Amino acid sequence: MQLGLVGLGRMGANMRERLREHGHDAIGYDPGSEASDVATLGELVAALSPPRIVWLMVPAGEVTRSVIAGLAERLQPGDLVVDGGNSRYTDDPVNAALLGARGVRFVDCGVSGGVWGRDNGYALMVGGNPTDIEFLAPVFDALRPPGPRANSFVHAGPVGAGHYAKMVHNGIEYGLMHAYAEGYELLLAEDSIADPGAVLQAWTAGTVVRSWLLDLLVDALSGDPELASLTGYTEDSGEGRWSVEEAIAHAVPVPVISAALFARFASRQSDSPTMKAVSALRRQFGGHAVEPAVPAADQR
Amino acid sequence: MQLGLVGLGRMGANMRERLREHGHDAIGYDPGSEASDVATLGELVAALSPPRIVWLMVPAGEVTRSVIAGLAERLQPGDLVVDGGNSRYTDDPVNAALLGARGVRFVDCGVSGGVWGRDNGYALMVGGNPTDIEFLAPVFDALRPPGPRANSFVHAGPVGAGHYAKMVHNGIEYGLMHAYAEGYELLLAEDSIADPGAVLQAWTAGTVVRSWLLDLLVDALSGDPELASLTGYTEDSGEGRWSVEEAIAHAVPVPVISAALFARFASRQSDSPTMKAVSALRRQFGGHAVEPAVPAADQR
Amino acid sequence: MQLGLVGLGRMGANMRERLREHGHDAIGYDPGSEASDVATLGELVAALSPPRIVWLMVPAGEVTRSVIAGLAERLQPGDLVVDGGNSRYTDDPVNAALLGARGVRFVDCGVSGGVWGRDNGYALMVGGNPTDIEFLAPVFDALRPPGPRANSFVHAGPVGAGHYAKMVHNGIEYGLMHAYAEGYELLLAEDSIADPGAVLQAWTAGTVVRSWLLDLLVDALSGDPELASLTGYTEDSGEGRWSVEEAIAHAVPVPVISAALFARFASRQSDSPTMKAVSALRRQFGGHAVEPAVPAADQR
Amino acid sequence: MQLGLVGLGRMGANMRERLREHGHDAIGYDPGSEASDVATLGELVAALSPPRIVWLMVPAGEVTRSVIAGLAERLQPGDLVVDGGNSRYTDDPVNAALLGARGVRFVDCGVSGGVWGRDNGYALMVGGNPTDIEFLAPVFDALRPPGPRANSFVHAGPVGAGHYAKMVHNGIEYGLMHAYAEGYELLLAEDSIADPGAVLQAWTAGTVVRSWLLDLLVDALSGDPELASLTGYTEDSGEGRWSVEEAIAHAVPVPVISAALFARFASRQSDSPTMKAVSALRRQFGGHAVEPAVPAADQR
Repeated sequence: MQLGLVGLGRMGANMRERLREHGHDAIGYDPGSEASDVATLGELVAALSPPRIVWLMVPAGEVTRSVIAGLAERLQPGDLVVDGGNSRYTDDPVNAALLGARGVRFVDCGVSGGVWGRDNGYALMVGGNPTDIEFLAPVFDALRPPGPRANSFVHAGPVGAGHYAKMVHNGIEYGLMHAYAEGYELLLAEDSIADPGAVLQAWTAGTVVRSWLLDLLVDALSGDPELASLTGYTEDSGEGRWSVEEAIAHAVPVPVISAALFARFASRQSDSPTMKAVSALRRQFGGHAVEPAVPAADQR
Repeated sequence: MQLGLVGLGRMGANMRERLREHGHDAIGYDPGSEASDVATLGELVAALSPPRIVWLMVPAGEVTRSVIAGLAERLQPGDLVVDGGNSRYTDDPVNAALLGARGVRFVDCGVSGGVWGRDNGYALMVGGNPTDIEFLAPVFDALRPPGPRANSFVHAGPVGAGHYAKMVHNGIEYGLMHAYAEGYELLLAEDSIADPGAVLQAWTAGTVVRSWLLDLLVDALSGDPELASLTGYTEDSGEGRWSVEEAIAHAVPVPVISAALFARFASRQSDSPTMKAVSALRRQFGGHAVEPAVPAADQR
Repeated sequence: MQLGLVGLGRMGANMRERLREHGHDAIGYDPGSEASDVATLGELVAALSPPRIVWLMVPAGEVTRSVIAGLAERLQPGDLVVDGGNSRYTDDPVNAALLGARGVRFVDCGVSGGVWGRDNGYALMVGGNPTDIEFLAPVFDALRPPGPRANSFVHAGPVGAGHYAKMVHNGIEYGLMHAYAEGYELLLAEDSIADPGAVLQAWTAGTVVRSWLLDLLVDALSGDPELASLTGYTEDSGEGRWSVEEAIAHAVPVPVISAALFARFASRQSDSPTMKAVSALRRQFGGHAVEPAVPAADQR
Repeated sequence: MQLGLVGLGRMGANMRERLREHGHDAIGYDPGSEASDVATLGELVAALSPPRIVWLMVPAGEVTRSVIAGLAERLQPGDLVVDGGNSRYTDDPVNAALLGARGVRFVDCGVSGGVWGRDNGYALMVGGNPTDIEFLAPVFDALRPPGPRANSFVHAGPVGAGHYAKMVHNGIEYGLMHAYAEGYELLLAEDSIADPGAVLQAWTAGTVVRSWLLDLLVDALSGDPELASLTGYTEDSGEGRWSVEEAIAHAVPVPVISAALFARFASRQSDSPTMKAVSALRRQFGGHAVEPAVPAADQR
């Protein structure tokens, strides 16, 4: 099939390659990339034959909204926009309505696979109208790994359901990563464990905890067993926050996902106001020794 | 090799079969099982040629201690005992010392793989003396899955290190299971998600969260999408508690593993005294409506 | 001063009484209450002399919005509306703008004190313009407890800051209540503790944990030491959720407040889908015994 | 009454003063203090008339055990030892048995009040034999604040119950402090809040969250509103860990107390191995930018 791909970052560029290898005519557009096939959004639209498919792989929020607005002005009734970025699912009905007012169809698609998806394929969670999704089947089949479709593709529900599913996927990911990481620290803390990385590697076959993330952690530890090459400063990218917010909205207890999220917040604080207040209280009531702040010049 | 296997429960019986298939002469003993090859511990010892190997697959704590004591009386210098059960790692040096006083060698071995290990092989984490562990290599190789030894076997350190590693493995397992489970509930809570099980299945290939546990959850949900066949009442089996206790001993923060553990505790309470106290406080200060307890007869 | 009071529920009715006792002319309006002094919002406005003060004590969200809209139509430039309910602080600028378009001033005021405020006084956290707040000083002074103003009153910042402060107050309250409640359960769980309530009472003077909430818990336990008269089913009222959402928005780790919130969510579930999924996983990989669901008719 | 007081640290020295002011003949012994009234434990015992009372205010664990052993050698049947330190409650029966073998009685007593107890009085939670506790009543009454005995004193149960109650008291304290501290950080994070300390002060009268700890936090913040004089590095002193361990032993979920404990652990880590592992995973699967560790010399 022919389709336009807006956004040629790490994900979009890889997806263009994979689509082309599977025989699709993917035309990429990214104003900030030398790899762009066309110079403007207008050129992209002009290069496509109706009914056009335009697949977005751009940052959620502002950028996505802006591209959608640009497409709403340029596309024609019957064309179809897929938002494959990490948009919040509540943005989808808004974008769908904006496009729908012009007769343009909309499908949201959560895409998982990271930098490995180029070769391994991407898992896809989509939301939208069954007819629209059926229409896109060849594209989905090119992107996803070989094997049964149900193992890497789901029509999760109406518009928004794809991104909701992707959000939950990432929320789980936060919890999984943190569980492995806590275990790693427990191994590291115990003197009798000679090599935490070797223990983790021994779990990659046969155990209950075997997984792709575990494989990746083993890779990361090989050659850098104490992870000396990086710090614990850890960003978060939206879906973790949204997962907790949706949990609150649905009154679902998520102690694990939230603990993983809060640990990321804490990792980015040079000092914790919360702990300073705890420390201050201890000094007040108990005369407990506390760590006084020292002028930066005197600091170890 | 010839070895005695004490304990023919789910794990022990399967391991005997796997060992035999790999050409080992495994003699099983279990006083409570019809599948026992010998009638008494003494008979088991008598049936083995020195240096004898006796592998325990019995419940941690009391039972393990009792079998170890029985073996200390019956084995000879140079014999070797492997504790393959889920003993707390702090029990291992005690058991090793008891046996060591008779010249009997001791190796602790954490075994992972559940009921699937029979066919897939078991991952093994062992602690002890390098010579003893080398001596047992053919047994370990029969039990573990095919493939590189380092992917399913680790000599983690001195006596106790094997069980420490297994404890951490299970602590991680608590966190992983809970992360998936929270995600499942988030999917279930959102009306637009047509079939949570189908979403989970779509993550089994290509995604960041793919794992064996995810495969199992998909299996569990197929045909019982709301898990109506069971309740949330969930036991815990020791290693989760020990993981948190070791974390405390090592001053390692484990918010994820502990959250998973506490959720299991809560799942077994018919009503929570903590929440009753919270509810009582709300009634006291705010006149908030609370749920009065009603006589059982009147209950919905 | 003369002021109108919209909303004569538990809080509003008590506040009217306290204001009158302090010599203020408080005219109450509540369409659902027999204690209403006037029959309509129009009558209330008509009964007040300009510049009018109208103080809202109505449920946050829909109801508050609707009353604000009604007042925007009826009040005159220079009049002043105080939102004393538990509105989300992000609603305040919206309401202020709506009223401001008519020249009507707006102050938000978080009110704490529960049913005890009638006699003890209410603590007040206000947001808005300094001139407006100064104008209201006699009303604030009547409502708050005697003693230094700074101990029960704060001009927290611009419009919204009062409700933000109140939200945080309630978030803390969630954590405090839960901390006491966990301690209560720890006392209850230990057989050697003869009477948990007596232990708690012994903490009410001299200890580090003494507080008004502790006094209330002691009261609740006297005569009902196992809190048999109520269940653990516990509502949450908005501020706890908002506190966690604001924490997320500000990247502030709040493991304690969120744990208290999630425990309330869990208290309202008859069975936990999360724990059912955990239980299902345990059955899948380990053949662990799980609690099968039984038909309601067979249930204990 | 006459009594010996072993340990003249912050707590012991203050208690000696308070006892003397209440007319008791308190003889202090501390080998490391110039304020010691006697030079040796033997001299202390010799200075007391039978039945002797010896009250310990020494560090839990090793030191307490050693003093108890010294007393067991020197005291006579009918004498009475009170352990007023922060011993783990499981130490109490051991110490009681050691002394009991000599006919010496034992009472454990949790003492709360910090440096303020000197003037305000101490709350006391005691475990032991009713006769022994009745015998000590004059001492307890001197130590505790004026007012009803039940508000600052409890005979919690048999030997050990006093320290169990004190442990729970401190566990609650961890949770309370953390709840206030999270609230403080939430106030600090919001630009519209002009002065977090002023908000906290406005809660000290009339609110649901008023407490002695809140008063202390207000004091700490006055003059140092951002707590610039100290860091978040926070020790923990035993009872928090024990509370979580007891919770595990009793299968009581304690998400709040454990969150407060883990946050203290985290506050003492210069970098978190857990977060380094999370960061490593993110780099592995997503090519996410991570914070590389830089040589110390280059660090800001």
